Amino acid sequence: MFLESKDLLGLKDLSAEEIMYILDTAKTMKHILTSKNKKAPHLQGKTIVTLFHENSTRTRLSFELASKYLSANTANIAASSSSIAKGETLIDTGRTIDSMGCDVIVMRHPMSGAPHLLARHVKASVINAGDGMNEHPTQALLDMFTIMEKKGTLKGLKVAIIGDIYHSRVARSNIWGMTKLGAEVLVAGPATLLPPGMENMGVKVYNTIQEALIDADVVMGLRIQRERQKSGLFPTLREYSKFFGLDDKRLKFAKDDALVLHPGPVNRGVEFSSGVVDGDQSLINEQVTNGVAVRMALLYLLTRRNSIENIN
Amino acid sequence: MFLESKDLLGLKDLSAEEIMYILDTAKTMKHILTSKNKKAPHLQGKTIVTLFHENSTRTRLSFELASKYLSANTANIAASSSSIAKGETLIDTGRTIDSMGCDVIVMRHPMSGAPHLLARHVKASVINAGDGMNEHPTQALLDMFTIMEKKGTLKGLKVAIIGDIYHSRVARSNIWGMTKLGAEVLVAGPATLLPPGMENMGVKVYNTIQEALIDADVVMGLRIQRERQKSGLFPTLREYSKFFGLDDKRLKFAKDDALVLHPGPVNRGVEFSSGVVDGDQSLINEQVTNGVAVRMALLYLLTRRNSIENIN
Amino acid sequence: MFLESKDLLGLKDLSAEEIMYILDTAKTMKHILTSKNKKAPHLQGKTIVTLFHENSTRTRLSFELASKYLSANTANIAASSSSIAKGETLIDTGRTIDSMGCDVIVMRHPMSGAPHLLARHVKASVINAGDGMNEHPTQALLDMFTIMEKKGTLKGLKVAIIGDIYHSRVARSNIWGMTKLGAEVLVAGPATLLPPGMENMGVKVYNTIQEALIDADVVMGLRIQRERQKSGLFPTLREYSKFFGLDDKRLKFAKDDALVLHPGPVNRGVEFSSGVVDGDQSLINEQVTNGVAVRMALLYLLTRRNSIENIN
Repeated sequence: MFLESKDLLGLKDLSAEEIMYILDTAKTMKHILTSKNKKAPHLQGKTIVTLFHENSTRTRLSFELASKYLSANTANIAASSSSIAKGETLIDTGRTIDSMGCDVIVMRHPMSGAPHLLARHVKASVINAGDGMNEHPTQALLDMFTIMEKKGTLKGLKVAIIGDIYHSRVARSNIWGMTKLGAEVLVAGPATLLPPGMENMGVKVYNTIQEALIDADVVMGLRIQRERQKSGLFPTLREYSKFFGLDDKRLKFAKDDALVLHPGPVNRGVEFSSGVVDGDQSLINEQVTNGVAVRMALLYLLTRRNSIENIN
Repeated sequence: MFLESKDLLGLKDLSAEEIMYILDTAKTMKHILTSKNKKAPHLQGKTIVTLFHENSTRTRLSFELASKYLSANTANIAASSSSIAKGETLIDTGRTIDSMGCDVIVMRHPMSGAPHLLARHVKASVINAGDGMNEHPTQALLDMFTIMEKKGTLKGLKVAIIGDIYHSRVARSNIWGMTKLGAEVLVAGPATLLPPGMENMGVKVYNTIQEALIDADVVMGLRIQRERQKSGLFPTLREYSKFFGLDDKRLKFAKDDALVLHPGPVNRGVEFSSGVVDGDQSLINEQVTNGVAVRMALLYLLTRRNSIENIN
Repeated sequence: MFLESKDLLGLKDLSAEEIMYILDTAKTMKHILTSKNKKAPHLQGKTIVTLFHENSTRTRLSFELASKYLSANTANIAASSSSIAKGETLIDTGRTIDSMGCDVIVMRHPMSGAPHLLARHVKASVINAGDGMNEHPTQALLDMFTIMEKKGTLKGLKVAIIGDIYHSRVARSNIWGMTKLGAEVLVAGPATLLPPGMENMGVKVYNTIQEALIDADVVMGLRIQRERQKSGLFPTLREYSKFFGLDDKRLKFAKDDALVLHPGPVNRGVEFSSGVVDGDQSLINEQVTNGVAVRMALLYLLTRRNSIENIN
């Protein structure tokens, strides 16, 4: 089987089968990652370039290590120091990277759709590592991988996503992906941070965290971006914590064996109490490990796809 | 055959034979670069450090990938974060890098002659990746490689270089190199940006783009550095474009099969119209690919030279 | 034999035997480093991440190349661009890196004790690459290696350390290490920069450089951190140089074959005259080479220790 597109731009465009194919491949990648010898030859002679127009240590590092564990050539471009500062267009930047022999460009950009634009103009595969408020598909894939590893399936699970749904590309990708795999997704957050039309995506919307948590199999917190606080849409951190923060007491509304996820880094005492972050139900560190595995899988599948395609 | 110097500081000091030797080697390197498996053992166990005192994503990335395609150890130093900020002298910085086992230092510096100073004080080979207004030899080598790949030779070709000749290390290196290989070089640009004494370098100087283009086999645009606009020597971008911008209409002054080159990134609508950038005669993306090949060749030739030298 | 701790946090906690074990291993590593082929398989499949909360090109580069010479996977995190800017706690950052499959975290931090805190919360080995005014153990190890290479032993040697003892983690680590190996350590510097209680560490304190130098086998200068000048504790650079600067004349107070060391980069004309920096007795460049060897040794010993430990 193959991924249909040369790129991974979002989960909106993937079929359930494609998602399962990626997650299955990630399982075997996790063996490499957690073994003593984190070096496999899958990407030998392939070149991965990260092109980040927003700061992100964890996602960039995760892709970089995923590439290195599979023996790829890697290089990083931070947009602040790049030709973009010289006024080069995104497409010209992409073609330049492409012309240097790059096989995969991993892109983060503050504008929704930037990776899609890039993908149409380069031969390399493009992986969306977060575009504006649109999608962050590898984060959602690692979330789904983490849940399936514990629960075996997403089918029939109740997943409650709590927080700033409006700005969250993590929420959006998870909603696309999880509903395709048969989960029931519920969201809750301050009224100003709930976008209209969620119901059309098959999602239930609540105004209190308690309602969303009832009988949940999975509780996912979203990061409050402090830099967005000034927008006027936001409650104060104290208010947010009071009404939507998850602590051990509130967690009891969910099922006893509910899983707790967060894309990190957590603002301790805001989205989650420290008790929840460090508690038995928290899978936050496991998510980080699985993120590397999922990215290894994607890099492998996309480069293999292109290699075989070129032969035919 | 060997390169005479341990360093590559400029094309002024190379013989025509040495230039041809580098370009011939780059041909075999391009095979590696454009193959499915971009990993060859030529620089295994060698160490390449880039030391950039000016921002440059494309040149730095080109050297970094060239090194990695040949299996070298690589590391990057950006001057802003380096000990230079602590007041260390250039020579002390160089000796430190040297002492860590470095084989080649790739240096970019805003002052003409900085790589030459460094080269005299380190055991490592030094490659000039652009020094002030002096030379940018690897750019000129890739330009010559690109032309020879299409035309077979530089001998007898008419090459028109258009733009800010005064500040351009790209122009200077190309003039040295191309005249050695038998090309006729013509330059045109605003009068304030044409340095005196060009005729002594064997170059014809014109005040209009039209005159320079007549019967040209190659048209090379130079980047207008917007950061230099304030110097007072410059026309506005609009004026520049009006009098020296290359569009499809002006390109007709050149030969029908004239090649169009630009070191990039292009200011679309200033040096070149988008029609020219994306047109059939444009080799801009090909130049990027060839840049990696030329740098692979140089890294290989310099490290091999030193290895053999040390044996004798 | 094995190192007792999973981490290298300071020389205060190491036994003389452990120090000698590291230095002996560094000897074999230096052969790799100074050979034509700087690529050995010792760290194949291991992952080293540098996490630097202070700028440092030379120490970071030394660890990065040490890792690459031994074939490790490597990645660098500069704190300014990392999640720390987003308010993540040090421990959460550490756990994230840990969860990505990292074997060794090399950390520099402006606060004393930061690496110790990190080490208690991660599975990876932590190497202290300088923490506040506390320790910089790998610098002291390379200093001791350099001395032993020339003198055969530290036992009975008189080592004079000159400069800003108060703020110097280099001095502190050297005092711990050298006294354990049997050297006699003397310090001298401006009265405001001599911490009280040095005698309890077995160190002799002098107020003039001349007294400290008499019959010294080794003279070590410390870097004057210009950024600390404003604290009011400091003499001007001119005053410092007049009373504590080392020039050829003052160096005559020491033994004829005294070794001259400095952690670099030297402020020429302040701590040392250029004559001393470039003189026959100066081992400053040799120290840089030995720094890579010592770090290769440590990375190898710590990862090997963990591998064997995990088997049992």
